Amino acid sequence: MEQLSIKTSTHDYPVVIDQGLRFKLKSFINKDYPSVYIMTDSNVAPLYLDDVYNTLKDQFHVTYSIIPAGEESKSSRVYFDLMTQLIEAGVDRDGLIIALGGGMIGDLAGFVAATYLRGVDFIQMPTTILAHDSSVGGKVAINHPLGKNLIGAFYPPVAVIYDVETLQTIPFREIRSGYAEIAKHSMIHTPPFWDQIKSVTLDESLSETTLIRDLIHGINVKANIVEMDEREANIRQFLNFGHTLGHAIESELGYGKMTHGEAVAIGMLFAMELSEQHFSVSLPVDAFYDWMKRNNYPLNLPRLSVNRLMERMKRDKKTKNATIKMVLLKALGEPILVDMEDVSLRQQLESFLEKMVIR
Amino acid sequence: MEQLSIKTSTHDYPVVIDQGLRFKLKSFINKDYPSVYIMTDSNVAPLYLDDVYNTLKDQFHVTYSIIPAGEESKSSRVYFDLMTQLIEAGVDRDGLIIALGGGMIGDLAGFVAATYLRGVDFIQMPTTILAHDSSVGGKVAINHPLGKNLIGAFYPPVAVIYDVETLQTIPFREIRSGYAEIAKHSMIHTPPFWDQIKSVTLDESLSETTLIRDLIHGINVKANIVEMDEREANIRQFLNFGHTLGHAIESELGYGKMTHGEAVAIGMLFAMELSEQHFSVSLPVDAFYDWMKRNNYPLNLPRLSVNRLMERMKRDKKTKNATIKMVLLKALGEPILVDMEDVSLRQQLESFLEKMVIR
Repeated sequence: MEQLSIKTSTHDYPVVIDQGLRFKLKSFINKDYPSVYIMTDSNVAPLYLDDVYNTLKDQFHVTYSIIPAGEESKSSRVYFDLMTQLIEAGVDRDGLIIALGGGMIGDLAGFVAATYLRGVDFIQMPTTILAHDSSVGGKVAINHPLGKNLIGAFYPPVAVIYDVETLQTIPFREIRSGYAEIAKHSMIHTPPFWDQIKSVTLDESLSETTLIRDLIHGINVKANIVEMDEREANIRQFLNFGHTLGHAIESELGYGKMTHGEAVAIGMLFAMELSEQHFSVSLPVDAFYDWMKRNNYPLNLPRLSVNRLMERMKRDKKTKNATIKMVLLKALGEPILVDMEDVSLRQQLESFLEKMVIR
Repeated sequence: MEQLSIKTSTHDYPVVIDQGLRFKLKSFINKDYPSVYIMTDSNVAPLYLDDVYNTLKDQFHVTYSIIPAGEESKSSRVYFDLMTQLIEAGVDRDGLIIALGGGMIGDLAGFVAATYLRGVDFIQMPTTILAHDSSVGGKVAINHPLGKNLIGAFYPPVAVIYDVETLQTIPFREIRSGYAEIAKHSMIHTPPFWDQIKSVTLDESLSETTLIRDLIHGINVKANIVEMDEREANIRQFLNFGHTLGHAIESELGYGKMTHGEAVAIGMLFAMELSEQHFSVSLPVDAFYDWMKRNNYPLNLPRLSVNRLMERMKRDKKTKNATIKMVLLKALGEPILVDMEDVSLRQQLESFLEKMVIR
């Protein structure tokens, strides 16, 4: 069992990583909660809801809600429905919410927990690799029709319980998506981490030992940053490496066409190329491109409107005063936030997209 | 000018009280906000929106929204509409929201500020006496059809700017409503404060000097408590004195029939009677009754269902595990949270309501 502890302005919480943790959940719940409410999605429920429910039902009054899988559920309608269900289930301010699922569930249930009766405790139980990122750090949110995660809060969980057995059931597409965020953590960290990642191949040969090693390393990078900057006043923005263009591509294609991680990987590739030019440095762009190719990340894009991508990048939350700010790298492990000049950014984006369409 | 400072877990903020502050707003805004968004209601807008707008427009990019006055606007629909307006106005995470109005506006705009882009700065500019209470302490919320303030957060403002000139335009009914919360603050505080309040008459003779004195005293009581218990884990619950029955009556009658403060005053009367019996002590019940009568607080209630009131008191957020918890007084200035026995509480409520119907 691996365990680390994360400091926040209000409390510390543990991140526990091991196999079969869903059967040992009780040992991580230290309070006598009068009610426990599990929120999960329609993909995860058939696989793991019973395990979690049965583990808790003797000691707690447990109820649950199964939410349709998919990003569309991070909506104001579902959010409000969950509020109604909590009230009707009689959950009071001493209740506990458990978010059992991937990033969608963690974000949605977390935002419900942050705002139900002005905040109740919640536990993150991530079931995807991508959620190694989103479950740590306390960012919770729902989407607005005009953009992702525009309504939300910083609200840390009371624990992250990561049962890596639940990762066995996720498809390779999701493994790729999650590993892109691990690769991101490796690039904003000192080089040995990227050296470790670049030799990983995402197929049947991926061992649980390798996966756990990389998850822990990724969570550690994230934890160090969010501890220093809980509310994203400065260095936490480094975690957006690859996300400025990534988010824009993701929403321009329409959610679901490309996974979050796949879009972010393309965004990282662009950010690395920009960084090389901006700082006249050399970065492992080719090695990262090869890694993406070997692991079947999409490297061909349909023709996209540069104008619209620029617009979306401006509307990105990281953007202040309509200047596009991007995280670039001076070197591996040396991220820096840069105000980009509109004209040159547009040029470089055009030539990058041209390559991505033809190569 | 009176000023006090309130500590929170994230920052300290000033509460400034004076005449004409709406014309001096700039001197309390210390950050170079790229955009300022004023939220106000349809009663306050014709009176003070121009003043605030004109004070800021030279230095900031200012936009605003005028929300229909009344508790119905604390709804999920209005909340999401405001989110859309903020996005369309281009307010980014460095923006500032100003809540110009009474408790409804403070709660609604505060909850919008707490959750727009995971939280932006906001300033409370209360324009009612009642809001001396709600604007301090960081409680923000909207209503759910099943209950008041069920969706919300603890999110302190960056400043409370209390222009007491704006109180000149509020009707006596609202002055009564606000003074009930001042009376509440006086009763959970040491006796001299109540002695001061009990001689106040709420008519044309009420001087601005008296009003400011009482507001500052009330805010001080509240500030001391919320500094010690920001997230209502313990002593902050003392501020609910009079609110358990008060809320139940308010919602049983239907919002708007009786003001919040009027309902709370009745709740306080009941809590004082209960306290006398529970602790065999003597409290100024008659003096408070006389004060209510002299100041035209409603003292006659229609026949209300005790069952339904008990149900509503159980659903109150202060209620845990379906026992009704009430704030009682061992003496003036000595509040205490008591688990009430259902049977005896019902009996005493019946006899209290009987008196309120006939006397």
